[in-house]
Amino acid sequence: MPNYNGTQKYTSSLPPAPSSAFDPGLFDSDNQACPFCHISSTYSPYDPSCPPPSSSPLLNPSLTSPQPATFMVLSTPCLVAFLDIMPLSAGHVLLCPRRHRAKLTDATPDEATELGRYLRILSAAVVEATGVGDWNVVQNNGAAAAQVVPHMHFHIIPRPELRDKRSERFTATMFGRGQRDDLDEEEGAALAERIREKMAEVLRREGCGEGGAKL
Amino acid sequence: MPNYNGTQKYTSSLPPAPSSAFDPGLFDSDNQACPFCHISSTYSPYDPSCPPPSSSPLLNPSLTSPQPATFMVLSTPCLVAFLDIMPLSAGHVLLCPRRHRAKLTDATPDEATELGRYLRILSAAVVEATGVGDWNVVQNNGAAAAQVVPHMHFHIIPRPELRDKRSERFTATMFGRGQRDDLDEEEGAALAERIREKMAEVLRREGCGEGGAKL
Repeated sequence: MPNYNGTQKYTSSLPPAPSSAFDPGLFDSDNQACPFCHISSTYSPYDPSCPPPSSSPLLNPSLTSPQPATFMVLSTPCLVAFLDIMPLSAGHVLLCPRRHRAKLTDATPDEATELGRYLRILSAAVVEATGVGDWNVVQNNGAAAAQVVPHMHFHIIPRPELRDKRSERFTATMFGRGQRDDLDEEEGAALAERIREKMAEVLRREGCGEGGAKL
Repeated sequence: MPNYNGTQKYTSSLPPAPSSAFDPGLFDSDNQACPFCHISSTYSPYDPSCPPPSSSPLLNPSLTSPQPATFMVLSTPCLVAFLDIMPLSAGHVLLCPRRHRAKLTDATPDEATELGRYLRILSAAVVEATGVGDWNVVQNNGAAAAQVVPHMHFHIIPRPELRDKRSERFTATMFGRGQRDDLDEEEGAALAERIREKMAEVLRREGCGEGGAKL
C-alpha cells in the first residue's frame, strides 16, 4: 500500500497489474485515516447507467457522518466520484480510484484507463447538469503541487464566466489559497441527482447500458 | 469535426464511437490553423517501448519549422505528446489526441481511455527523467477555463519545491498570467530523449513491449 507524506521520494517501481475488479478486500477501508477511503468503504457500487433514486439507502449522504455528508455521483467497483465539500463552483466534483492510491503513478494500469474513460463522461454530465460549458480538470500529486488529501483524485471544476480579478482569485483558490465555502446540503442533494441522471443519459446514448457494458 | 470558439455552446451529442485506429485520414492535418494538428500530421507513430534514437528523421525537431521546433516524447496512432514550448518547469509536457478535438468531451471513448493510460505512464517517465516527484496534471476546456490552443491537451507539470510567493506566481502562470520563458532547444532535445527512454523502461517493466502490446 503506498503511503503518503509531503516529502516522500518517488520510487520507480509502479504497482503490479491489478487483481480482479471484485477483489474480496475491495470495499475494506484501505487506510483508516483517509477520508476518501472512508467514502469508498461506505458506498457500494451501482450501475451508473441506471442509478438508484436519491431516496435509496445506497446514496444516503449522512452515511459518512460524523465526517461531512457525501453526495455521490459515481460508484463502480473501480472508481468513486462525489461533490467536493468545499466547491469552487457549483458542480465541482472529485473522481478517484476506490482503493487508496497516493499519486497518479500509484494507480494500476486499469484504474488509469478507467479514470480517463470517466473523466470524459463525468465532464459531459457536469456540463449538462450545470449548463456551464467551460471547465478545468486538475489533479495534484504531492505537497509541492498542492495535493491535500493523499488519495489521488481528479477535480472537475466548472468555470462560469468571471471577470479579471475574480477569475484570478478563482485560479489561486484552485491551488489552496483563498476562501472556499462549504457545500450547501440541499443544493448538493439536488445537484448530485442531476449529475447522476445526466451521466446515465450519456452512458445509455453511448451504448453502455445495463447488461452489455462494463461499469 | 468539432469547431472551437471561446463562446461556443456545449452540445449534448458526444461523438460516435471511433473508427479504426488506422483510419486512412488519421495523419492528415485535421485543422490547418491548429498547431497541434500540424505536429500530429508531421510526426508518424513509433513504438513507445522502443523509441527511435534522437538522430532519427522521425524525431527531427525542425520538421515543424517555421513553427517552433517540436520535441516529441510520444507518438502513437491515437496520441501525441511533446515538450511545451514555453515550459513552466523543466519536463513540462503536453499530451493530446492526434486528431483535432476541441474539448475533452469531443474525444472519442477510446481516446479518453488512452489518455488516462498514458497520463500515468508519461507522469512516471517525467518524474524519473527530471527527478522531481511532485507534479500537476491540468486540462483546460474553453476560454473561461484558460484554454489557449483549441485542441484538447493535458499538461503534466513538474513542481520543484518553491517557497510562498514563487509558488503563487507559478500557479498563476499555469493559467495564463505571468512570464514564461521559451524552451532552450539544446536542453529540450536532451530532456525529450530522457523522457522517451524512461517511458520505454516503464512500458517494458509493465510488459507492454514490442509485439505483445497495443501502442
